[in-house]
Amino acid sequence: MSVEIVFVMVGTTHTGNLGAAARAMKTMGFSRLRLVDTCAHLSAEALARSSGANDVLQEAQRCDTLQEAVADCHIVVGTSARARQLSVPLRSCRSIAEELRELSGVGSPDQTVAMVFGQERSGLSNESLDLCTRLLRIPCNPDFSSLNLGSAVQVVAYELSQSLQSIPLGAPLPQPGKWKGSTAKDSPPVPSADPDELPATSEAMEHFFEHLDRVMINTGFLDPDNPRLLRRRLRRYFESHRPLGSELAIFRGILSSVENPRKR
Amino acid sequence: MSVEIVFVMVGTTHTGNLGAAARAMKTMGFSRLRLVDTCAHLSAEALARSSGANDVLQEAQRCDTLQEAVADCHIVVGTSARARQLSVPLRSCRSIAEELRELSGVGSPDQTVAMVFGQERSGLSNESLDLCTRLLRIPCNPDFSSLNLGSAVQVVAYELSQSLQSIPLGAPLPQPGKWKGSTAKDSPPVPSADPDELPATSEAMEHFFEHLDRVMINTGFLDPDNPRLLRRRLRRYFESHRPLGSELAIFRGILSSVENPRKR
Repeated sequence: MSVEIVFVMVGTTHTGNLGAAARAMKTMGFSRLRLVDTCAHLSAEALARSSGANDVLQEAQRCDTLQEAVADCHIVVGTSARARQLSVPLRSCRSIAEELRELSGVGSPDQTVAMVFGQERSGLSNESLDLCTRLLRIPCNPDFSSLNLGSAVQVVAYELSQSLQSIPLGAPLPQPGKWKGSTAKDSPPVPSADPDELPATSEAMEHFFEHLDRVMINTGFLDPDNPRLLRRRLRRYFESHRPLGSELAIFRGILSSVENPRKR
Repeated sequence: MSVEIVFVMVGTTHTGNLGAAARAMKTMGFSRLRLVDTCAHLSAEALARSSGANDVLQEAQRCDTLQEAVADCHIVVGTSARARQLSVPLRSCRSIAEELRELSGVGSPDQTVAMVFGQERSGLSNESLDLCTRLLRIPCNPDFSSLNLGSAVQVVAYELSQSLQSIPLGAPLPQPGKWKGSTAKDSPPVPSADPDELPATSEAMEHFFEHLDRVMINTGFLDPDNPRLLRRRLRRYFESHRPLGSELAIFRGILSSVENPRKR
Protein backbone atom coordinates (compact mmCIF):
# COMPACT_ATOMS: atom_id res chain seq x y z
CA MET A 1 0.00 0.00 0.00
CA SER A 2 2.93 2.27 0.43
CA VAL A 3 6.57 2.50 -0.32
CA GLU A 4 8.87 3.74 2.38
CA ILE A 5 12.03 5.40 1.12
CA VAL A 6 15.31 5.34 3.04
CA PHE A 7 18.33 7.25 1.75
CA VAL A 8 21.69 5.62 2.50
CA MET A 9 24.98 7.50 2.13
CA VAL A 10 28.11 5.34 2.00
CA GLY A 11 31.62 6.65 2.52
CA THR A 12 30.76 10.33 2.03
CA THR A 13 33.93 12.32 2.70
CA HIS A 14 32.68 15.93 2.68
CA THR A 15 30.43 16.97 5.54
CA GLY A 16 28.92 19.65 3.34
CA ASN A 17 27.58 16.96 1.03
CA LEU A 18 25.76 15.28 3.92
CA GLY A 19 24.09 18.58 4.69
CA ALA A 20 23.20 19.10 1.05
CA ALA A 21 21.77 15.59 0.85
CA ALA A 22 19.61 16.16 3.94
CA ARG A 23 18.34 19.41 2.49
CA ALA A 24 17.60 17.79 -0.88
CA MET A 25 15.68 14.99 0.83
CA LYS A 26 13.62 17.31 2.97
CA THR A 27 12.68 19.60 0.10
CA MET A 28 11.07 16.59 -1.55
CA GLY A 29 9.40 15.30 1.58
CA PHE A 30 11.80 12.53 2.59
CA SER A 31 13.33 12.21 6.03
CA ARG A 32 14.89 8.80 6.66
CA LEU A 33 18.68 8.84 6.34
CA ARG A 34 21.21 6.15 7.17
CA LEU A 35 24.96 6.62 7.12
CA VAL A 36 27.71 4.06 6.57
CA ASP A 37 31.33 4.97 7.06
CA THR A 38 30.80 8.66 6.36
CA CYS A 39 32.34 11.79 7.79
CA ALA A 40 30.69 13.55 10.76
CA HIS A 41 27.08 14.30 9.97
CA LEU A 42 26.54 16.74 12.82
CA SER A 43 29.52 18.94 12.06
CA ALA A 44 29.00 22.67 11.81
CA GLU A 45 29.40 22.57 8.03
CA ALA A 46 26.89 19.73 7.60
CA LEU A 47 24.32 21.55 9.72
CA ALA A 48 24.94 24.81 7.88
CA ARG A 49 24.60 23.26 4.44
CA SER A 50 21.42 21.42 5.49
CA SER A 51 19.85 24.86 5.72
CA GLY A 52 17.10 23.91 8.12
CA ALA A 53 17.04 20.17 7.52
CA ASN A 54 18.86 19.65 10.85
CA ASP A 55 16.16 17.21 11.91
CA VAL A 56 17.03 14.87 9.05
CA LEU A 57 20.67 14.89 10.09
CA GLN A 58 19.88 14.56 13.80
CA GLU A 59 17.62 11.58 13.24
CA ALA A 60 20.03 9.89 10.82
CA GLN A 61 21.08 6.38 11.84
CA ARG A 62 24.71 5.33 11.76
CA CYS A 63 25.36 1.74 10.62
CA ASP A 64 28.62 -0.20 10.62
CA THR A 65 28.12 -1.75 7.20
CA LEU A 66 25.90 -1.30 4.16
CA GLN A 67 24.64 -4.83 4.81
CA GLU A 68 23.36 -3.65 8.19
CA ALA A 69 21.91 -0.44 6.73
CA VAL A 70 19.75 -2.31 4.23
CA ALA A 71 18.97 -5.44 6.29
CA ASP A 72 15.25 -4.60 6.56
CA CYS A 73 14.91 -3.40 2.94
CA HIS A 74 12.98 -5.19 0.21
CA ILE A 75 14.42 -3.19 -2.68
CA VAL A 76 17.93 -1.73 -2.71
CA VAL A 77 18.70 0.79 -5.44
CA GLY A 78 22.35 1.58 -6.06
CA THR A 79 23.20 4.79 -7.85
CA SER A 80 26.02 4.63 -10.32
CA ALA A 81 27.68 7.42 -12.23
CA ARG A 82 29.61 5.26 -14.59
CA ALA A 83 28.51 2.67 -17.09
CA ARG A 84 30.39 -0.35 -15.82
CA GLN A 85 30.83 -3.86 -17.04
CA LEU A 86 27.85 -5.28 -15.22
CA SER A 87 25.36 -7.98 -15.96
CA VAL A 88 22.70 -5.94 -14.15
CA PRO A 89 21.15 -3.38 -16.45
CA LEU A 90 21.61 0.27 -15.56
CA ARG A 91 18.20 1.92 -15.44
CA SER A 92 17.16 5.50 -15.70
CA CYS A 93 16.03 7.43 -12.67
CA ARG A 94 12.56 7.86 -14.15
CA SER A 95 12.14 4.20 -14.97
CA ILE A 96 12.95 3.22 -11.37
CA ALA A 97 10.64 5.93 -10.02
CA GLU A 98 7.86 4.68 -12.28
CA GLU A 99 8.33 1.12 -11.05
CA LEU A 100 8.13 2.29 -7.42
CA ARG A 101 4.98 4.25 -8.23
CA GLU A 102 3.37 1.08 -9.58
CA LEU A 103 4.43 -0.78 -6.44
CA SER A 104 2.86 1.86 -4.22
CA GLY A 105 -0.59 1.36 -5.73
CA VAL A 106 -3.72 0.33 -3.92
CA GLY A 107 -3.63 -3.24 -2.70
CA SER A 108 0.16 -3.47 -2.55
CA PRO A 109 1.70 -4.20 0.81
CA ASP A 110 4.30 -1.97 2.46
CA GLN A 111 7.84 -2.18 1.16
CA THR A 112 11.01 -0.50 2.34
CA VAL A 113 13.25 0.84 -0.41
CA ALA A 114 16.84 1.98 0.05
CA MET A 115 18.40 4.55 -2.30
CA VAL A 116 22.16 4.09 -1.90
CA PHE A 117 24.74 6.76 -2.78
CA GLY A 118 28.46 6.04 -2.82
CA GLN A 119 31.61 8.01 -2.21
CA GLU A 120 32.08 11.34 -4.04
CA ARG A 121 34.90 10.25 -6.34
CA SER A 122 34.79 6.49 -6.50
CA GLY A 123 31.05 5.85 -6.20
CA LEU A 124 29.91 2.52 -4.81
CA SER A 125 32.39 -0.33 -4.56
CA ASN A 126 31.67 -3.60 -6.33
CA GLU A 127 30.95 -5.17 -2.94
CA SER A 128 28.33 -2.50 -2.28
CA LEU A 129 26.81 -2.87 -5.75
CA ASP A 130 26.51 -6.60 -5.08
CA LEU A 131 24.00 -5.78 -2.33
CA CYS A 132 21.76 -3.82 -4.69
CA THR A 133 18.67 -5.17 -6.38
CA ARG A 134 18.53 -2.34 -8.93
CA LEU A 135 21.09 0.00 -10.44
CA LEU A 136 20.14 3.56 -11.26
CA ARG A 137 21.99 6.05 -13.40
CA ILE A 138 20.97 9.65 -13.85
CA PRO A 139 21.13 10.38 -17.58
CA CYS A 140 23.76 13.05 -18.11
CA ASN A 141 25.51 14.89 -20.88
CA PRO A 142 28.03 12.29 -22.09
CA ASP A 143 30.61 15.05 -22.52
CA PHE A 144 30.11 16.34 -18.98
CA SER A 145 28.69 13.74 -16.68
CA SER A 146 30.23 14.72 -13.36
CA LEU A 147 27.21 15.27 -11.16
CA ASN A 148 27.82 16.58 -7.66
CA LEU A 149 26.74 14.16 -4.91
CA GLY A 150 24.23 16.60 -3.40
CA SER A 151 22.80 17.24 -6.86
CA ALA A 152 22.45 13.52 -7.49
CA VAL A 153 20.48 13.13 -4.24
CA GLN A 154 18.35 16.10 -5.28
CA VAL A 155 17.48 14.68 -8.70
CA VAL A 156 16.65 11.25 -7.28
CA ALA A 157 14.53 12.74 -4.47
CA TYR A 158 12.73 14.99 -6.95
CA GLU A 159 12.00 12.16 -9.38
CA LEU A 160 10.75 9.90 -6.57
CA SER A 161 8.51 12.60 -5.17
CA GLN A 162 7.06 13.31 -8.62
CA SER A 163 6.27 9.66 -9.19
CA LEU A 164 5.18 8.69 -5.72
CA GLN A 165 3.11 11.58 -4.55
CA SER A 166 -0.41 12.02 -5.73
CA ILE A 167 -0.91 15.36 -4.02
CA PRO A 168 -1.46 18.55 -5.99
CA LEU A 169 1.29 21.14 -6.18
CA GLY A 170 1.23 23.41 -3.18
CA ALA A 171 -0.74 21.08 -0.95
CA PRO A 172 0.81 20.02 2.34
CA LEU A 173 3.06 16.97 2.11
CA PRO A 174 1.90 13.67 3.54
CA GLN A 175 3.89 11.89 6.23
CA PRO A 176 7.45 12.50 5.02
CA GLY A 177 9.22 9.60 3.39
CA LYS A 178 6.13 7.46 3.18
CA TRP A 179 3.98 7.82 0.10
CA LYS A 180 0.67 6.13 -0.22
CA GLY A 181 -0.83 5.14 -3.52
CA SER A 182 -3.88 7.10 -4.57
CA THR A 183 -6.94 5.51 -3.05
CA ALA A 184 -10.17 5.01 -4.90
CA LYS A 185 -13.20 5.84 -2.78
CA ASP A 186 -14.46 2.30 -2.44
CA SER A 187 -11.11 0.57 -2.62
CA PRO A 188 -10.86 -2.77 -0.82
CA PRO A 189 -9.29 -2.81 2.63
CA VAL A 190 -5.51 -2.87 2.53
CA PRO A 191 -4.15 -6.38 3.08
CA SER A 192 -1.77 -6.63 5.97
CA ALA A 193 1.77 -7.08 4.70
CA ASP A 194 2.46 -10.82 4.48
CA PRO A 195 6.26 -11.15 4.40
CA ASP A 196 5.84 -14.21 2.15
CA GLU A 197 4.37 -12.00 -0.55
CA LEU A 198 6.98 -9.27 -0.27
CA PRO A 199 10.47 -9.43 -1.74
CA ALA A 200 12.78 -11.09 0.77
CA THR A 201 14.70 -8.72 3.01
CA SER A 202 18.43 -8.22 2.53
CA GLU A 203 19.01 -10.17 5.72
CA ALA A 204 17.08 -13.21 4.46
CA MET A 205 19.03 -13.04 1.19
CA GLU A 206 22.33 -13.25 3.08
CA HIS A 207 21.18 -16.46 4.75
CA PHE A 208 20.19 -17.87 1.37
CA PHE A 209 23.59 -17.06 -0.16
CA GLU A 210 25.33 -18.77 2.76
CA HIS A 211 23.16 -21.86 2.27
CA LEU A 212 23.75 -21.92 -1.51
CA ASP A 213 27.48 -21.57 -0.93
CA ARG A 214 27.52 -24.53 1.46
CA VAL A 215 25.66 -26.75 -1.00
CA MET A 216 27.88 -25.77 -3.94
CA ILE A 217 31.00 -26.49 -1.91
CA ASN A 218 29.62 -29.87 -0.82
CA THR A 219 28.79 -30.97 -4.36
CA GLY A 220 32.20 -29.80 -5.51
CA PHE A 221 30.76 -27.18 -7.87
CA LEU A 222 32.37 -24.29 -6.00
CA ASP A 223 36.00 -24.40 -4.99
CA PRO A 224 36.10 -22.02 -2.02
CA ASP A 225 39.80 -21.42 -2.64
CA ASN A 226 39.10 -20.36 -6.21
CA PRO A 227 35.57 -18.99 -6.43
CA ARG A 228 36.42 -16.83 -9.46
CA LEU A 229 33.28 -14.95 -10.52
CA LEU A 230 30.83 -17.69 -9.58
CA ARG A 231 29.66 -16.28 -6.25
CA ARG A 232 29.32 -12.78 -7.63
CA ARG A 233 27.38 -13.85 -10.69
CA LEU A 234 24.90 -15.82 -8.59
CA ARG A 235 24.55 -12.93 -6.19
CA ARG A 236 24.01 -10.50 -9.02
CA TYR A 237 21.33 -12.69 -10.56
CA PHE A 238 19.31 -13.27 -7.40
CA GLU A 239 19.77 -9.73 -6.07
CA SER A 240 18.64 -8.10 -9.27
CA HIS A 241 15.65 -10.46 -9.30
CA ARG A 242 15.00 -10.62 -5.63
CA PRO A 243 12.57 -13.45 -4.86
CA LEU A 244 9.50 -13.10 -2.67
CA GLY A 245 9.70 -14.52 0.83
CA SER A 246 7.67 -17.54 -0.30
CA GLU A 247 9.93 -18.11 -3.31
CA LEU A 248 13.04 -17.91 -1.16
CA ALA A 249 11.48 -20.53 1.11
CA ILE A 250 11.20 -22.87 -1.91
CA PHE A 251 14.85 -22.29 -2.83
CA ARG A 252 15.90 -22.96 0.75
CA GLY A 253 13.77 -26.12 0.68
CA ILE A 254 15.46 -27.36 -2.49
CA LEU A 255 18.90 -26.70 -0.96
CA SER A 256 17.92 -28.54 2.23
CA SER A 257 16.62 -31.49 0.21
CA VAL A 258 19.96 -31.65 -1.61
CA GLU A 259 21.76 -31.76 1.75
CA ASN A 260 19.36 -34.33 3.18
CA PRO A 261 17.72 -36.22 0.33
CA ARG A 262 14.56 -38.08 1.30
CA LYS A 263 15.26 -40.85 -1.17
CA ARG A 264 17.68 -41.61 -3.96
CA MET B 1 21.50 -3.12 -30.95
CA SER B 2 17.97 -3.78 -31.99
CA VAL B 3 14.83 -5.36 -30.75
CA GLU B 4 12.88 -7.54 -33.12
CA ILE B 5 9.18 -7.71 -32.40
CA VAL B 6 7.04 -10.75 -33.22
CA PHE B 7 3.29 -10.68 -32.64
CA VAL B 8 1.77 -14.01 -31.59
CA MET B 9 -1.98 -14.65 -31.69
CA VAL B 10 -3.19 -17.66 -29.70
CA GLY B 11 -6.60 -19.26 -30.14
CA THR B 12 -8.17 -16.36 -32.02
CA THR B 13 -11.69 -17.45 -33.03
CA HIS B 14 -12.82 -14.62 -35.33
CA THR B 15 -11.05 -14.32 -38.67
CA GLY B 16 -11.92 -10.63 -38.77
CA ASN B 17 -9.80 -10.10 -35.67
CA LEU B 18 -6.75 -11.64 -37.39
CA GLY B 19 -7.23 -9.19 -40.24
CA ALA B 20 -7.61 -6.30 -37.83
CA ALA B 21 -4.47 -7.39 -35.97
CA ALA B 22 -2.46 -7.54 -39.21
CA ARG B 23 -3.68 -4.08 -40.17
CA ALA B 24 -2.88 -2.69 -36.73
CA MET B 25 0.62 -4.15 -36.89
CA LYS B 26 1.35 -2.81 -40.35
CA THR B 27 0.13 0.70 -39.56
CA MET B 28 2.78 0.83 -36.88
CA GLY B 29 5.53 -0.72 -38.98
CA PHE B 30 5.49 -4.29 -37.69
CA SER B 31 5.22 -7.35 -39.92
CA ARG B 32 6.11 -10.57 -38.14
CA LEU B 33 3.05 -12.58 -37.11
CA ARG B 34 2.83 -16.09 -35.69
CA LEU B 35 -0.41 -17.99 -35.16
CA VAL B 36 -1.15 -20.76 -32.68
CA ASP B 37 -4.41 -22.64 -32.83
CA THR B 38 -6.31 -19.80 -34.49
CA CYS B 39 -9.06 -19.72 -37.09
CA ALA B 40 -8.16 -19.42 -40.80
CA HIS B 41 -5.92 -16.42 -41.35
CA LEU B 42 -6.33 -16.32 -45.13
CA SER B 43 -10.11 -16.36 -45.15
CA ALA B 44 -11.92 -13.73 -47.20
CA GLU B 45 -12.99 -11.90 -44.05
CA ALA B 46 -9.47 -11.84 -42.63
CA LEU B 47 -8.06 -10.47 -45.89
CA ALA B 48 -10.86 -7.91 -46.16
CA ARG B 49 -10.40 -6.66 -42.59
CA SER B 50 -6.64 -6.46 -43.07
CA SER B 51 -7.37 -3.69 -45.53
CA GLY B 52 -4.16 -4.00 -47.48
CA ALA B 53 -2.04 -5.77 -44.88
CA ASN B 54 -2.44 -9.02 -46.84
CA ASP B 55 1.34 -9.44 -46.86
CA VAL B 56 1.41 -9.67 -43.07
CA LEU B 57 -1.23 -12.41 -43.15
CA GLN B 58 0.36 -14.24 -46.06
CA GLU B 59 3.76 -14.33 -44.39
CA ALA B 60 2.34 -15.33 -41.00
CA GLN B 61 3.80 -18.53 -39.57
CA ARG B 62 1.55 -21.23 -38.14
CA CYS B 63 2.90 -23.03 -35.07
CA ASP B 64 1.49 -26.06 -33.26
CA THR B 65 2.05 -24.71 -29.77
CA LEU B 66 2.88 -21.43 -28.08
CA GLN B 67 6.05 -23.09 -26.84
CA GLU B 68 7.10 -23.59 -30.47
CA ALA B 69 6.05 -20.07 -31.45
CA VAL B 70 8.30 -18.45 -28.84
CA ALA B 71 11.17 -20.97 -28.86
CA ASP B 72 13.65 -18.45 -30.32
CA CYS B 73 12.45 -15.51 -28.20
CA HIS B 74 14.42 -13.86 -25.42
CA ILE B 75 11.51 -11.91 -23.97
CA VAL B 76 7.90 -13.10 -24.04
CA VAL B 77 5.25 -10.53 -23.15
CA GLY B 78 1.79 -11.87 -22.36
CA THR B 79 -1.14 -9.49 -22.59
CA SER B 80 -3.78 -9.84 -19.95
CA ALA B 81 -7.11 -8.10 -19.68
CA ARG B 82 -7.86 -9.17 -16.18
CA ALA B 83 -6.03 -8.56 -12.94
CA ARG B 84 -5.46 -12.12 -11.80
CA GLN B 85 -4.00 -13.68 -8.73
CA LEU B 86 -0.44 -13.83 -10.00
CA SER B 87 2.91 -13.51 -8.39
CA VAL B 88 4.19 -11.82 -11.55
CA PRO B 89 3.44 -8.10 -11.54
CA LEU B 90 1.12 -6.78 -14.23
CA ARG B 91 2.84 -3.90 -15.98
CA SER B 92 1.50 -1.07 -18.03
CA CYS B 93 1.92 -1.02 -21.78
CA ARG B 94 4.05 2.11 -21.56
CA SER B 95 6.34 0.69 -18.91
CA ILE B 96 7.06 -2.39 -21.06
CA ALA B 97 7.56 -0.25 -24.16
CA GLU B 98 9.98 1.93 -22.23
CA GLU B 99 11.96 -1.09 -21.08
CA LEU B 100 12.22 -2.36 -24.65
CA ARG B 101 13.36 1.08 -25.79
CA GLU B 102 16.18 0.97 -23.25
CA LEU B 103 17.11 -2.52 -24.47
CA SER B 104 17.28 -1.34 -28.07
CA GLY B 105 19.93 1.26 -27.31
CA VAL B 106 23.38 1.47 -28.80
CA GLY B 107 25.64 -1.34 -27.71
CA SER B 108 22.86 -3.79 -26.92
CA PRO B 109 22.79 -7.04 -28.84
CA ASP B 110 19.81 -8.20 -30.88
CA GLN B 111 16.88 -9.65 -28.98
CA THR B 112 13.68 -11.21 -30.20
CA VAL B 113 10.56 -10.18 -28.31
CA ALA B 114 7.17 -11.89 -28.58
CA MET B 115 3.96 -9.97 -27.87
CA VAL B 116 1.36 -12.67 -27.14
CA PHE B 117 -2.41 -12.14 -27.43
CA GLY B 118 -4.93 -14.71 -26.20
CA GLN B 119 -8.41 -15.76 -27.16
CA GLU B 120 -11.11 -13.09 -27.49
CA ARG B 121 -13.17 -14.04 -24.45
CA SER B 122 -10.93 -16.08 -22.21
CA GLY B 123 -7.55 -14.43 -22.87
CA LEU B 124 -4.41 -16.46 -22.30
CA SER B 125 -4.63 -19.71 -20.34
CA ASN B 126 -2.54 -20.15 -17.22
CA GLU B 127 -0.35 -22.58 -19.16
CA SER B 128 0.30 -19.88 -21.77
CA LEU B 129 0.96 -17.23 -19.13
CA ASP B 130 3.51 -19.57 -17.58
CA LEU B 131 5.60 -19.22 -20.75
CA CYS B 132 5.69 -15.43 -20.47
CA THR B 133 8.54 -13.42 -19.00
CA ARG B 134 6.47 -10.26 -18.64
CA LEU B 135 2.76 -9.53 -18.25
CA LEU B 136 1.26 -6.46 -19.83
CA ARG B 137 -2.10 -4.89 -19.17
CA ILE B 138 -3.50 -1.98 -21.08
CA PRO B 139 -4.85 0.47 -18.49
CA CYS B 140 -8.61 0.76 -19.06
CA ASN B 141 -11.64 2.36 -17.53
CA PRO B 142 -12.32 0.06 -14.56
CA ASP B 143 -16.06 0.38 -15.25
CA PHE B 144 -15.69 -0.58 -18.90
CA SER B 145 -12.55 -2.56 -19.54
CA SER B 146 -13.63 -4.78 -22.44
CA LEU B 147 -11.11 -3.92 -25.12
CA ASN B 148 -11.62 -5.52 -28.53
CA LEU B 149 -8.75 -7.84 -29.56
CA GLY B 150 -7.90 -5.82 -32.66
CA SER B 151 -7.90 -2.64 -30.58
CA ALA B 152 -5.58 -4.22 -28.03
CA VAL B 153 -3.11 -5.14 -30.78
CA GLN B 154 -3.41 -1.59 -32.10
CA VAL B 155 -2.64 0.03 -28.77
CA VAL B 156 0.34 -2.25 -28.12
CA ALA B 157 1.72 -1.76 -31.65
CA TYR B 158 1.28 2.01 -31.32
CA GLU B 159 2.99 2.19 -27.94
CA LEU B 160 5.89 0.03 -29.14
CA SER B 161 6.36 2.08 -32.27
CA GLN B 162 6.35 5.30 -30.23
CA SER B 163 8.97 3.99 -27.86
CA LEU B 164 11.14 2.10 -30.31
CA GLN B 165 11.31 4.32 -33.32
CA SER B 166 13.55 7.31 -33.38
CA ILE B 167 12.34 8.52 -36.78
CA PRO B 168 10.46 11.77 -37.16
CA LEU B 169 6.74 11.75 -37.93
CA GLY B 170 6.11 11.35 -41.61
CA ALA B 171 9.53 9.94 -42.43
CA PRO B 172 9.67 6.54 -44.15
CA LEU B 173 9.64 3.60 -41.76
CA PRO B 174 12.77 1.56 -41.24
CA GLN B 175 12.79 -2.16 -41.94
CA PRO B 176 9.41 -3.19 -40.52
CA GLY B 177 9.37 -4.94 -37.21
CA LYS B 178 13.01 -4.25 -36.47
CA TRP B 179 13.82 -1.02 -34.71
CA LYS B 180 17.33 0.10 -34.17
CA GLY B 181 18.39 2.30 -31.30
CA SER B 182 19.44 5.79 -32.19
CA THR B 183 23.07 5.78 -33.17
CA ALA B 184 25.51 8.42 -32.09
CA LYS B 185 27.84 9.47 -34.86
CA ASP B 186 30.95 7.95 -33.41
CA SER B 187 29.31 5.10 -31.55
CA PRO B 188 31.45 2.01 -31.03
CA PRO B 189 30.96 -0.89 -33.43
CA VAL B 190 28.02 -3.09 -32.50
CA PRO B 191 29.13 -6.19 -30.63
CA SER B 192 28.02 -9.37 -32.28
CA ALA B 193 25.25 -10.97 -30.25
CA ASP B 194 26.86 -13.39 -27.81
CA PRO B 195 24.07 -15.75 -26.74
CA ASP B 196 25.70 -16.01 -23.30
CA GLU B 197 25.00 -12.34 -22.73
CA LEU B 198 21.40 -12.44 -23.94
CA PRO B 199 18.46 -13.74 -21.96
CA ALA B 200 18.15 -17.48 -22.52
CA THR B 201 15.73 -18.50 -25.25
CA SER B 202 12.41 -20.11 -24.38
CA GLU B 203 13.78 -23.40 -25.68
CA ALA B 204 16.79 -23.33 -23.35
CA MET B 205 14.47 -22.50 -20.44
CA GLU B 206 12.40 -25.63 -21.12
CA HIS B 207 15.55 -27.76 -20.88
CA PHE B 208 16.43 -26.07 -17.59
CA PHE B 209 12.96 -26.73 -16.12
CA GLU B 210 13.22 -30.40 -17.10
CA HIS B 211 16.62 -30.63 -15.40
CA LEU B 212 15.40 -28.87 -12.25
CA ASP B 213 12.39 -31.17 -12.13
CA ARG B 214 14.59 -34.26 -12.32
CA VAL B 215 16.84 -33.07 -9.49
CA MET B 216 13.91 -32.13 -7.26
CA ILE B 217 12.32 -35.54 -7.79
CA ASN B 218 15.60 -37.29 -7.03
CA THR B 219 16.15 -35.43 -3.78
CA GLY B 220 12.55 -36.10 -2.79
CA PHE B 221 11.64 -32.40 -2.72
CA LEU B 222 9.09 -32.73 -5.50
CA ASP B 223 6.52 -35.51 -5.48
CA PRO B 224 5.67 -35.87 -9.18
CA ASP B 225 2.29 -37.34 -8.24
CA ASN B 226 1.46 -34.28 -6.16
CA PRO B 227 3.38 -31.29 -7.51
CA ARG B 228 0.82 -28.81 -6.14
CA LEU B 229 1.96 -25.29 -7.02
CA LEU B 230 5.68 -25.98 -6.74
CA ARG B 231 6.47 -26.36 -10.44
CA ARG B 232 4.38 -23.36 -11.40
CA ARG B 233 5.89 -21.12 -8.77
CA LEU B 234 9.43 -21.99 -9.84
CA ARG B 235 8.51 -21.49 -13.46
CA ARG B 236 6.92 -18.15 -12.71
CA TYR B 237 9.97 -16.98 -10.80
CA PHE B 238 12.57 -17.92 -13.41
CA GLU B 239 10.42 -16.90 -16.39
CA SER B 240 9.67 -13.48 -15.00
CA HIS B 241 13.38 -13.08 -14.25
CA ARG B 242 14.77 -14.89 -17.24
CA PRO B 243 18.50 -15.53 -16.74
CA LEU B 244 21.17 -14.77 -19.33
CA GLY B 245 22.57 -17.71 -21.27
CA SER B 246 25.69 -17.62 -19.09
CA GLU B 247 23.62 -17.56 -15.89
CA LEU B 248 21.51 -20.47 -17.06
CA ALA B 249 24.75 -22.38 -17.71
CA ILE B 250 25.70 -21.85 -14.04
CA PHE B 251 22.31 -23.13 -12.86
CA ARG B 252 22.62 -26.18 -15.10
CA GLY B 253 26.12 -26.71 -13.71
CA ILE B 254 24.86 -26.62 -10.12
CA LEU B 255 22.11 -29.12 -10.97
CA SER B 256 24.62 -31.43 -12.68
CA SER B 257 26.93 -31.22 -9.67
CA VAL B 258 24.03 -32.23 -7.42
CA GLU B 259 23.40 -35.26 -9.65
CA ASN B 260 27.08 -36.15 -9.82
CA PRO B 261 28.87 -34.68 -6.82
CA ARG B 262 32.63 -34.45 -7.18
CA LYS B 263 33.19 -35.04 -3.48
CA ARG B 264 31.14 -35.33 -0.30
